[in-house]
Amino acid sequence: MIICETKQELRTFRKSCRGTVGFVPTMGYLHDGHAKLLETSIQQNDVTILSIFVNPTQFGPNEDLDRYPRDFERDHQLAASLGVDCIFYPSVDEMYTTESTITFDSGDMANVLCGASRPGHFNGVLQVVTKLFHLVQPTNAYFGQKDAQQLALIESLVEAYDFPLSIVRVATIRDNDGLAKSSRNVYLSAAEREQAPRIYQALVAGKKVYEECASVKETVHYVQQELGKLTAARIDYVDMLSYPHLKKTEHAKLYVLAVAVFFEKARLIDNILIERVNPYATNDVK
Amino acid sequence: MIICETKQELRTFRKSCRGTVGFVPTMGYLHDGHAKLLETSIQQNDVTILSIFVNPTQFGPNEDLDRYPRDFERDHQLAASLGVDCIFYPSVDEMYTTESTITFDSGDMANVLCGASRPGHFNGVLQVVTKLFHLVQPTNAYFGQKDAQQLALIESLVEAYDFPLSIVRVATIRDNDGLAKSSRNVYLSAAEREQAPRIYQALVAGKKVYEECASVKETVHYVQQELGKLTAARIDYVDMLSYPHLKKTEHAKLYVLAVAVFFEKARLIDNILIERVNPYATNDVK
Repeated sequence: MIICETKQELRTFRKSCRGTVGFVPTMGYLHDGHAKLLETSIQQNDVTILSIFVNPTQFGPNEDLDRYPRDFERDHQLAASLGVDCIFYPSVDEMYTTESTITFDSGDMANVLCGASRPGHFNGVLQVVTKLFHLVQPTNAYFGQKDAQQLALIESLVEAYDFPLSIVRVATIRDNDGLAKSSRNVYLSAAEREQAPRIYQALVAGKKVYEECASVKETVHYVQQELGKLTAARIDYVDMLSYPHLKKTEHAKLYVLAVAVFFEKARLIDNILIERVNPYATNDVK
Repeated sequence: MIICETKQELRTFRKSCRGTVGFVPTMGYLHDGHAKLLETSIQQNDVTILSIFVNPTQFGPNEDLDRYPRDFERDHQLAASLGVDCIFYPSVDEMYTTESTITFDSGDMANVLCGASRPGHFNGVLQVVTKLFHLVQPTNAYFGQKDAQQLALIESLVEAYDFPLSIVRVATIRDNDGLAKSSRNVYLSAAEREQAPRIYQALVAGKKVYEECASVKETVHYVQQELGKLTAARIDYVDMLSYPHLKKTEHAKLYVLAVAVFFEKARLIDNILIERVNPYATNDVK
């Protein structure tokens, strides 16, 4: 396995690659969710490149950039044990060598869910993902369904801007009790960790409520009530939108029921996909 | 020479290319300026791809999208005679198959010169250029210095977003009397055509005035006065900014002195690059 700390080293490695290239962009502090992305890429491609870069442009001024967890040695070992071919591990100065006034505007798709409480976050995500795609030039890029809005926006970016690559959606990996794997789970206190699985339980229960013919509005209300019972957490949002277009509608074919909750030191997100129940509904909204 | 009307045809052609690929994106109605871009690309690359696409997203609501001049047969013949390998000639529906809320925001570099009078124009340019770069995947892309602000923004885009290609600047081609070649010159009446060369004359005179140690401000004022004498034209802007960063300063190493004037049916632009005169100036601004 090779480690590239500069763009030039990566470009040189990329030129040497033959066959298909799978790419897994991460912010490091790898967990089982990342391992699943890497395993899927390794299975489906001749070469797999992992990037580890905590991207400052996707963090807001009061967010956790400075204390985002990092452990390159552990990440390195995990990647090597899985069979990753290359880690791209640049510094912030290496990634952002040049100032430019040009930014992405994510538009309406970023005005809901996490985008509503993290203004500018997805513009930063699209910026770094575009740079990474141009540097790595992957055949396939792997993203977890856990970051449902990020995945939807990146799919939209790739389709609308004709990037010559495919996005592969990978299902969320969970602890045995249902808690979605996240680098930020390390921030949870013991008491918080005990309550945290109830996030996913509320989503599963919400799905059942919807499938018993509740409306989207009623389903959201139900999940809000369930999460309101968590004494250690405060709700950021609960919403149910068409997927991947993230529109408010009672007539989608596929929905994402998504939540974010604040614990003392961690903001956790999770979501579940739900197919439309009522087979007689018309006026499909994508 | 092959003509591709769909993205898929272009992708198939691109896969068949060996060696370096030069790319000349245009809106068609080719003139000697485009021919120079194509000749330069053909000279420097194994394969040359020309695109002809009048991009609606870079035209404002009151601009000349509907009456932009078109003549594919003539363009086709010129490209064939020069030795172009492929023309990408998509429809608007083919280029914009999918709706997305994601757009570019060009930022401050688009708030001066043409950007000030054409809000949103450069966002549309960056959008279509990004799509074309992803579809064509060129080694080198050729742009004329005549569209100085467009060239500066595309250079900034390529550098800041790590596009795997090089931008080649090509000098403005002019008629014998100095008028810059432009597809929009066909809109000029005989009387307007007679006055139009005085745009470039004013730029050349302005350069001389600056080199005789006038300030940037005095130089701009001088060119405004000169263009004010044109009875058939109305000034849109005259400005002198650092190049390629387009900042207002008396301390740049290189300037662009740029103008836009309205005739009855055509808005023409032109510019000239000027190196800093005063060798003792400090506080260089890029």
